[in-house]
Amino acid sequence: MSKEAPFPDPKSKAESEEGTVFAPKFDAEGLVPVVATSAATGEVLMLAYMNEEALARTIETGEAYYWSRSRGRLWRKGEESGNSQRVVEMRTDCDQDAIWLKVEAVGIDAACHTGRRSCFYRAVPLGPAPGGGVSLRFVDAERQFDPETVYRHAGAAKGTLKSSE
Amino acid sequence: MSKEAPFPDPKSKAESEEGTVFAPKFDAEGLVPVVATSAATGEVLMLAYMNEEALARTIETGEAYYWSRSRGRLWRKGEESGNSQRVVEMRTDCDQDAIWLKVEAVGIDAACHTGRRSCFYRAVPLGPAPGGGVSLRFVDAERQFDPETVYRHAGAAKGTLKSSE
Repeated sequence: MSKEAPFPDPKSKAESEEGTVFAPKFDAEGLVPVVATSAATGEVLMLAYMNEEALARTIETGEAYYWSRSRGRLWRKGEESGNSQRVVEMRTDCDQDAIWLKVEAVGIDAACHTGRRSCFYRAVPLGPAPGGGVSLRFVDAERQFDPETVYRHAGAAKGTLKSSE
Repeated sequence: MSKEAPFPDPKSKAESEEGTVFAPKFDAEGLVPVVATSAATGEVLMLAYMNEEALARTIETGEAYYWSRSRGRLWRKGEESGNSQRVVEMRTDCDQDAIWLKVEAVGIDAACHTGRRSCFYRAVPLGPAPGGGVSLRFVDAERQFDPETVYRHAGAAKGTLKSSE
């Protein structure tokens, strides 16, 4: 996999859907959305983004790399928190513009920077909304670590305070 | 839920992450990515997008509506194929810029327009790529319906041939 162009250009619709050439489609910002689920429980842990380099590194190393949109840089999951993700399986979808990772937690089982196992710790109730809008309900919201401690420590060591991972 | 502004503007980081007010963040194109998983098996079925209206209708009706980027219009899942999605649970993530739907298939259990149960029917092998790039491997790729028949029929009825749903 060369450093310059790790993946070929997107193919025709038919080739993209029924072929075996991996030619992922990145959006206008050069990103592709990635769903990470727990290989153990199937739970959706997070939705994040990869650029070409993050995708190439993830494939090569079997460790999850993402592109941080807020920080504008490549990010190895767990580089600060220590809680990285080992990729058990990677899949792409019909039009090759989305990625699904089944991952195994390395370290504390908490994919969310708030310290929770999953970023999806609030349910949106269904049905006609009562006056005042939709009110979220916390579910599976227990923290596995204290983000104040984990990220303050990591930030202090590098002279920067990170708002999120 | 008013027709004009179904959701409040996004809140501060703290309120967005730890509050109960549902104030989803739409991207520059007015969309939010949505992961749909099977309520029965946990499998990731598809990654699609919702605009404000699609999200509001999904919440109100408990049926999955999406925004079709290729067709530039609101789309009730299954409006042509007959294979719609009943929402069992909806969740949002820490920064409220992604949605997770647990769905139950109504009709044939096939979320993908290619006729397959899931859009993620190909695995991306991990490890250093051999010369010639990454070659996808078909998994869970059995078709539940014939897309030629289903969409030709639906397209013919409306005088248009649809390339995908």
